[in-house]
Amino acid sequence: MGGDYGPPVTVPAALDALKRHPELKLALVGDESRLLAELKNHHAAPNDRLSIRHASQIVEMDDKPSFALRNKKDSSMRVAIELVKEGEAQAIVSAGNTGALMATARFVLKMLPGVDRPAIIAALPSKRGHTHMLDLGANVDVDSETLFQFAIMGSVLVSAVEDLSNPRVGLLNVGEEEIKGNDQVKQAGALLAECPSLNYIGFVEGNDIYLGDVDVVVCDGFVGNSVLKASEGIAKMIGQTLKDEFKRNWLTKLAALLAMPVLKGIGRRINPDKYNGASLVGLRGIVIKSHGGASRPAFLNAIEEAMREVEKDVPQRIKDQLEAILVSRV
Amino acid sequence: MGGDYGPPVTVPAALDALKRHPELKLALVGDESRLLAELKNHHAAPNDRLSIRHASQIVEMDDKPSFALRNKKDSSMRVAIELVKEGEAQAIVSAGNTGALMATARFVLKMLPGVDRPAIIAALPSKRGHTHMLDLGANVDVDSETLFQFAIMGSVLVSAVEDLSNPRVGLLNVGEEEIKGNDQVKQAGALLAECPSLNYIGFVEGNDIYLGDVDVVVCDGFVGNSVLKASEGIAKMIGQTLKDEFKRNWLTKLAALLAMPVLKGIGRRINPDKYNGASLVGLRGIVIKSHGGASRPAFLNAIEEAMREVEKDVPQRIKDQLEAILVSRV
Repeated sequence: MGGDYGPPVTVPAALDALKRHPELKLALVGDESRLLAELKNHHAAPNDRLSIRHASQIVEMDDKPSFALRNKKDSSMRVAIELVKEGEAQAIVSAGNTGALMATARFVLKMLPGVDRPAIIAALPSKRGHTHMLDLGANVDVDSETLFQFAIMGSVLVSAVEDLSNPRVGLLNVGEEEIKGNDQVKQAGALLAECPSLNYIGFVEGNDIYLGDVDVVVCDGFVGNSVLKASEGIAKMIGQTLKDEFKRNWLTKLAALLAMPVLKGIGRRINPDKYNGASLVGLRGIVIKSHGGASRPAFLNAIEEAMREVEKDVPQRIKDQLEAILVSRV
Repeated sequence: MGGDYGPPVTVPAALDALKRHPELKLALVGDESRLLAELKNHHAAPNDRLSIRHASQIVEMDDKPSFALRNKKDSSMRVAIELVKEGEAQAIVSAGNTGALMATARFVLKMLPGVDRPAIIAALPSKRGHTHMLDLGANVDVDSETLFQFAIMGSVLVSAVEDLSNPRVGLLNVGEEEIKGNDQVKQAGALLAECPSLNYIGFVEGNDIYLGDVDVVVCDGFVGNSVLKASEGIAKMIGQTLKDEFKRNWLTKLAALLAMPVLKGIGRRINPDKYNGASLVGLRGIVIKSHGGASRPAFLNAIEEAMREVEKDVPQRIKDQLEAILVSRV
C-alpha cells in the first residue's frame, strides 16, 4: 500500500515478478478490495502463487515511527513484517515510510545478536559495475563500534548477493591520510585494520564511490543519506540539461534522434530503477525498502533484491560472520 | 607554487587575469627563478602590475598542517598570507595543501571576532544558476553554534558576491520533517529560526543543492566534503559514460559530431572549471583555495573569485553582520 503510488505500481510489479520467476510466491498485504480491484485491472486474480493478506490500516508517509508502532497494529506494513516473523514469508518488500518500516521491523523481528543498530544498504552505479554503501539514513549518530558492525554486515551482504569472495571495504572519510577525519571514523579505521577476516582497504572519499575501486563504502546515515540524495540530484540535473540542450534547435533535435542509442546506453548503465531496493541489515529477517517514488520496473527490482537475499540467506550469514569475529576478538 | 601542476598552470592563469582585468595587480609568490622562467615561457616579465615575491620553501601537498606551520616559515603559502596580513595584498589565491592553508591563514590572519571556526565555501551548479555550500571540509565536528555562524557567513558572502539581497539559507538534513536529523542540526535549526536577519528556509536535503530552491546550504565539513566529492565523482562518471557510448560505432560517432553543440552547451552550464575557487570564510582577510588539479581557466576563475570578494569587502561585511546579530541576541 505504501510509496507515492501504492497498488497501481506495486501490484503490476508483483505480477511482473511472478511472470519472470516461476519459483516465486508472493503475498500482497493491504486493503483487500483495493488489491483485488488492482489485480482485476491487470486481468489477474489470487492463485496458488499469489495470495492476498488483508490489513485494515495504512502507515502514512508522514506518520512518525512511534505513532505507527503504537497505533497502526493492523497496517499493511506491520502485518507483512509479522508474516516474516512467523515464517510465513521469507522477506518483506515495502515502498512505505522508511522510519516506520525501520522501527516496526526492529520491534517485530528484533536485531541479530551482536548488532546494536540496523543500517540501510543499497547499490550505486560505478564505472566498473556498482558499489554498495551503508548506512543510508537509519542512524544519524554512530560510534566506531557501530561503523565496524556496518562494515561486517555490508561485506557479508555484498559477498552473498554479488558472489564476491572478498569484497573490498572502505571507510568514507574526508581525506585518505590517516590524520584526517573525525574521531569515530578514525577509531573505526583502527578496529577494521585489526580484523583479518575483512578485506579492509582503508579510507575512501566521496568520489571513490563511483570509481569502482571499492565494493562496500561505510559511513554514518547522515553522510550516506546526504551523499545519496546529492548524487541523485546532480544526476537528474545533468539529465535535464542534456534534454534541454537537445531541444534547443532543429540541428540539436536531429542530433538527439541520432544519439538515441547513446542516450539509451547511458540509461541502461546508470538507470536509477536498476538500483532500487535497499536492504535493512542487522535484523532477524529480510526487509527491503523500495524508493517511495519507484516505478513499476523499479519496484520489480526491489522484489528481485529480496529474492537474492532469500536465496543466499543473508541474515544467517551476517549472524555467522559476526559470531566468528566476536569470538576471534575475545 | 602549489597544486598538482604549480607555476605552469598558475603563472599563465595569472597572465590571463591581468589581461582580462586592467585594474588588477598581482604578486607571484614563490621560487623567483622558476617564476621568471615560467613568465619567460609566456613571453612575459615582471612589470608595474605583476611583481614577484621570492619565497624559498614550498608546502608539499602531503605536509601536515602543524609541520608546515612550524617548519615552512618561508614557504610561498606563508609569505603570500603575510602579504595579506601586512596590507600589501588584498587577497591570496592558492592551489596548495588545504589543511596547511587553513592552519596558516588562521594563525597569521586570525579569526574575525565572534567566529569560532573558519569554513570553506564554494558554489555548485544548480538548475537555475548555482548554490553555495559550506563547510566543505575545514571542520569535521561542529556544534549548533558553529553551524549557526556558518549560516551567517554563507549568507553574507552570497549576498555580496551574487548581489542577492536576501539569500535563502537551508540547513542540510536527512529529512525535511522536524523530527529527523542529529542533535546539532536540530539545535542549529532552532537558532536559525529565531534569527530575523537571516532568510532561513528550514531543512534541505542533498538533492535540493541542485534544484535551485536554496542559495546557501549549511552543513558540517565531513558531510559537505563527502557530498562535494561524490557529486564530482558521479558527474565525471556520467561524462565518461557519455563519451564511451558516443565512441561505440560509426553511427554513434556521427551522432557525436552532430551533438557537439549540445555537449558544449552542457559543458558551459556544468563546467567544473567555472566553479573553481572556494573561500575560507571567518578569517580577517580573503583567502581563496583553488582545486589542486585546477586547469589554467579554472585557476583564472579562482583569481576572479578573489577579485569579487575584494570588491565587496566580504570579511568586513561578515564582521558587521555578526556584530549586529550578536548585539540583537543580547
